[in-house]
Amino acid sequence: MTNTTPLKLVIVGGVAGGASAAARARRMNEHAEIILLEKDRDVSFANCGLPYYLGGEITDRNKLTVASADLLRKRFRIDVRTMTEAVAINRDARTVTVTNHTTNTTEDLPYDKVILAPGASPIRPPVGCDQCPGVFTLRNLHDTDDIHDHLDRIDNKHALVVGGGYIGIEMAEQLVERGHPVTLVERAEQVLALLDPEMAQPGAKALTDNGIDLRTSDEVVNIERSDNTIHATLKSGATLDVGIIIFGIGVIPNTKLATDAGLDTGQTRGITVDRYMRTSDPDIYAVGDAVEYVYGPTGQSMRIALAGPANRAGRIAGEHAVTGESQPMGDVFGTSIVRVFNVAAGLTGLTARSAERFGIDANTVTVIANHHAGYFPGAKPVTLKLTYAPDTGKVLGAQAVGEQGIDKRLDVIATLMAMNGTVRDLANLDLAYAPPFGSAKDVLHMAAFAASNQLDGFDTFLPANTDLADDQVVDVRTDAEVAKSPLPAESAVTHIPLDDLRDRLGELDADRPTVVSCASGLRSHVAARILLQNNFKAVFELSGGATIRNRAVASQPANA
Amino acid sequence: MTNTTPLKLVIVGGVAGGASAAARARRMNEHAEIILLEKDRDVSFANCGLPYYLGGEITDRNKLTVASADLLRKRFRIDVRTMTEAVAINRDARTVTVTNHTTNTTEDLPYDKVILAPGASPIRPPVGCDQCPGVFTLRNLHDTDDIHDHLDRIDNKHALVVGGGYIGIEMAEQLVERGHPVTLVERAEQVLALLDPEMAQPGAKALTDNGIDLRTSDEVVNIERSDNTIHATLKSGATLDVGIIIFGIGVIPNTKLATDAGLDTGQTRGITVDRYMRTSDPDIYAVGDAVEYVYGPTGQSMRIALAGPANRAGRIAGEHAVTGESQPMGDVFGTSIVRVFNVAAGLTGLTARSAERFGIDANTVTVIANHHAGYFPGAKPVTLKLTYAPDTGKVLGAQAVGEQGIDKRLDVIATLMAMNGTVRDLANLDLAYAPPFGSAKDVLHMAAFAASNQLDGFDTFLPANTDLADDQVVDVRTDAEVAKSPLPAESAVTHIPLDDLRDRLGELDADRPTVVSCASGLRSHVAARILLQNNFKAVFELSGGATIRNRAVASQPANA
Repeated sequence: MTNTTPLKLVIVGGVAGGASAAARARRMNEHAEIILLEKDRDVSFANCGLPYYLGGEITDRNKLTVASADLLRKRFRIDVRTMTEAVAINRDARTVTVTNHTTNTTEDLPYDKVILAPGASPIRPPVGCDQCPGVFTLRNLHDTDDIHDHLDRIDNKHALVVGGGYIGIEMAEQLVERGHPVTLVERAEQVLALLDPEMAQPGAKALTDNGIDLRTSDEVVNIERSDNTIHATLKSGATLDVGIIIFGIGVIPNTKLATDAGLDTGQTRGITVDRYMRTSDPDIYAVGDAVEYVYGPTGQSMRIALAGPANRAGRIAGEHAVTGESQPMGDVFGTSIVRVFNVAAGLTGLTARSAERFGIDANTVTVIANHHAGYFPGAKPVTLKLTYAPDTGKVLGAQAVGEQGIDKRLDVIATLMAMNGTVRDLANLDLAYAPPFGSAKDVLHMAAFAASNQLDGFDTFLPANTDLADDQVVDVRTDAEVAKSPLPAESAVTHIPLDDLRDRLGELDADRPTVVSCASGLRSHVAARILLQNNFKAVFELSGGATIRNRAVASQPANA
Repeated sequence: MTNTTPLKLVIVGGVAGGASAAARARRMNEHAEIILLEKDRDVSFANCGLPYYLGGEITDRNKLTVASADLLRKRFRIDVRTMTEAVAINRDARTVTVTNHTTNTTEDLPYDKVILAPGASPIRPPVGCDQCPGVFTLRNLHDTDDIHDHLDRIDNKHALVVGGGYIGIEMAEQLVERGHPVTLVERAEQVLALLDPEMAQPGAKALTDNGIDLRTSDEVVNIERSDNTIHATLKSGATLDVGIIIFGIGVIPNTKLATDAGLDTGQTRGITVDRYMRTSDPDIYAVGDAVEYVYGPTGQSMRIALAGPANRAGRIAGEHAVTGESQPMGDVFGTSIVRVFNVAAGLTGLTARSAERFGIDANTVTVIANHHAGYFPGAKPVTLKLTYAPDTGKVLGAQAVGEQGIDKRLDVIATLMAMNGTVRDLANLDLAYAPPFGSAKDVLHMAAFAASNQLDGFDTFLPANTDLADDQVVDVRTDAEVAKSPLPAESAVTHIPLDDLRDRLGELDADRPTVVSCASGLRSHVAARILLQNNFKAVFELSGGATIRNRAVASQPANA
């Protein structure tokens, strides 16, 4: 309970993981000597809040400081040293060589334990204009201040954001909120590349609906600056004259200190750690964006640069470093979410695409249902795509998109996966229901019911983008629905409203493979059950119906 | 996959459980003869929406119909018979005797399988005025229409709602929204009696803040009517002249049909069923408010009258009745939530009080943290009280109250409990984080950290209402905070702001049992760790700090 060993702990990096480690270490060991090194100006700031300060949604810059250096010193008696960079770990001498960039002095700090929380650095591609004013990446408060000042100054308000991942999208949204015309360039065929295409499509639509000039399958190949304007040339040949460019195309982990010291790294070039965040040297811990966590769906270690794991891992490392024990770090599922204007989109665990990339056999079902009771005002549809093992029904992942209640569904799936739950478990969950908060059968239940039906052989689902050229396709929506939004399909579609189906079976060929579709998948399930029990030989349902198929079509590059 | 047996299925009760059973049975067996009996006028309506239609939040009465009799007939070929009551089950003859209340005829329907979904009836206490206009219970659309008409007609707008549970509170809220002065009478010492007192207190405050005349520890003992006014006399002696009285004091399960047929009932007087919803007669199933589910935290069967389990159980019964197999029903945790104006409050699993009642040894911790990143605009505090096993750390329940994100936290805990998770599992959950949606360390993590600290012997928490008369009490908040809202305590409180604590240890007696408190429990944790590592012999933390202690005091009857 009480640890009075005056051990020397040196923590490299003072933001999420490093600051968490420092505070936990102090609480666990009042008498340790804890030095927190930060090569930049600021410690423990809110990285994830930076775009929102730039956009003016967060108005008070002080709010971006989670715990000031002063608080860490006074409350936790941490020896905080900013502008101080660890340049070498001398494992034999058990010292860390540090350079103070303010005084330009270097010294060796003895250590008993080291915690590395060096983070990652944003990638800036070699496309020219390396030293130009107006071309930025966004990683810390310093960057934020520079961008803020630049935005206030420029006459050409047009902003180019490069990268359609979370940071790029958050920046693009906030620049629109701040009144800038925004072009967003993404090299891949879609934004939100972590999501399957049709699940990313509502996010892309929110971008263009809000006036963003979205250019997928394109990239910046050259930047020049003249006359206070930045000239960007894209691979497509397009040129843009803008006042600012912000790159958000990814990060590389800051592992040099670790690799120079001979510490092991893994397949994704992150620092290798065990469940207690110990590197290959048990006196040196590492946490955050530079390390590899155990990824739940595969059991393999990989880099997952997210704030949540960094904070939890920091806490574990801080405790273990000063007490020699702690609870182990859990699996990480890459659970993440982004707001895109009025839309939220996110994922946890595997998508159809990542499952394929990892060589994991996975089924998916997609359902659409309201975030709270449909009869209660303000109900917003949630689209949920569930990924699960075709043999055991083990839940492997979920993607969700919609205006409300997205985070809740992702968190339930993340919890279930952490406990190795199956779609059977999901179907049985006893979730909170009252009309303003949910449905007696939540969208999570509906997805689990669909997956269970497939496991039990009651239904067979096809992905939204399935080629239907050789199939008998039946659309069971009403006339009005079909007229408003026809089902995109390669073959002729027979239209028989569900309630007429039993009386019009003779119009269909029971021997042909038959695909049924409706708006979202509810009615096609009823239709498929009718057909299967009327001697149709092979009946399939288009998962998510016309809604998802339309999104899949819209997400294809030619239509982007 | 295909079941062509033309078996005869009789379903008694056409709302949540019964309607779900009918639809699932049809999907699983296209050729079964399915008769759905409903003794009232309406099938498959949205019980949980009724208060919101009365209050005008739901404006379209048609929205209260989930699936009309017509839809059930056309889409599912269900033989729906409304105003038709099952009056006897003749198990030897395998018939159900039914009375059609429209034609006043009686007949015997042969069955292969029966599913009972008879629901429950609202309790109307024997306090007089049994046939008076203006005195209501609320259970179905018929009641709703009657109340609606009555509210439109009355001159005396003052409404008396009896019962401070979910339905009573929803009615009281909606009557206020409709412009009525409302008195709410509750026999217990608190409203929301399922919650621990201090967790119910914000809900009570929302009621009184919105002008409701709340009277706890009181009850209606007499009702008379004269001159178009209803005179209610309370046990306290108070009298009220009102235009309408609505009772929401609970329900009794409609088990007479089952018990007359000799089916077993359990300790809570609900119909006994197995995991496939079979009663003691395997050809007769039962679901919904009249049956006993397996309650997860105790493993014992008990009645849990909620829409979610009813719908899920109906689906299972419908499938099993026509196919002979299905997945088993899962444990139920009584997960529930209610909106009280701008506040949401709910629970899943055990509270401190219900754990005690069940004789289950349980620890609790209470934490308060923002529903999304504190630096992001609109952050609202969530109060989370976690109940867990003191030996294994198994999560046994949670209560949550606040303005935003309450349903999400309950659902995560409900999911974790369904999978037998511990507070260690909770601490490791990889939840969705971005500033608009959560925090890198969510309130769920904070609760898990606190509980883990207690399991590991790092901290010892005291409930908010602990008598502190014999303890050395230290309040580590700032001067300004203490001045604004002092800590209610029986003994003198020493005030030492956290950041001064190390320098002022000499003002405290290290040999006395010491209780530290702050605003919500974060700083008292840091303070306790400092004291414990400076040779203080026994250090305790007031869980949830001054905020929760103030709520506990406010929830005491004398202050209600």
